[in-house]
Amino acid sequence: MFTLHERLAADSIRVGELPLCALRLINDANYPWFVLVPKRPGIREIYQLNASDRVRLLEESCVLSEVLSAAFAPSKMNVAALGNKVPQLHLHHIARFSDDVAWPNPVWGVVPAKAYDNEEQKEIMALIQQGFENTDLRLET
Amino acid sequence: MFTLHERLAADSIRVGELPLCALRLINDANYPWFVLVPKRPGIREIYQLNASDRVRLLEESCVLSEVLSAAFAPSKMNVAALGNKVPQLHLHHIARFSDDVAWPNPVWGVVPAKAYDNEEQKEIMALIQQGFENTDLRLET
Repeated sequence: MFTLHERLAADSIRVGELPLCALRLINDANYPWFVLVPKRPGIREIYQLNASDRVRLLEESCVLSEVLSAAFAPSKMNVAALGNKVPQLHLHHIARFSDDVAWPNPVWGVVPAKAYDNEEQKEIMALIQQGFENTDLRLET
Repeated sequence: MFTLHERLAADSIRVGELPLCALRLINDANYPWFVLVPKRPGIREIYQLNASDRVRLLEESCVLSEVLSAAFAPSKMNVAALGNKVPQLHLHHIARFSDDVAWPNPVWGVVPAKAYDNEEQKEIMALIQQGFENTDLRLET
């Protein structure tokens, strides 16, 4: 059975469920930063997914990137599967801006996470949920 | 027409051509570090590829990750599309080890690149080219 890794659960907030992945917001208001976590137990690497799950992951990743691009008009999307600290497969999607605090470096380890306040969190959640309404993917919230 | 970005050309060494991507070795002996560069002009983000190229990219990425995993038995693969400095779409594949110089952090900006000497370069090229011989993908060298 799939269970979300405790470190991911602690660092992020549930947005909703896609067909393959849990969609979560990283609780760091420095960047619009989301992760997709395939709901498959025991998977550490993308290549360990079966062929149909790989295609689903790519589709969900591309739709999420497009939703973020439409919502935030970032300078660049950063998409990454690292997992050196949290081995459960999770795919980062970070909307980057040429004036964000880490630009042009990757975001990891640059500045401490800045938790969302209630109002900000509600706002970004609504923005993303609305974004998915214009796509072919159903986000169950 | 597709032309490799000059910064990628300077930082990496040609390994060969896959159906969609140029496969290059980053000239940094700190880690086995390769990039896939889709040979499509003007593409910055994965979602900008058409549907069949997306699937090809994923397949080439998964095969490369499996080849690297078989060749090096890393602790973790890191796969990432960042591109804040080099906007041409390129997908990093880095075999990470729990005793490498950057572990468990991402590799970017941790230590200066350490160029391969001729012998080391020949060795890692041969290893990867042999690895692809056991796959369904043809690497044209």
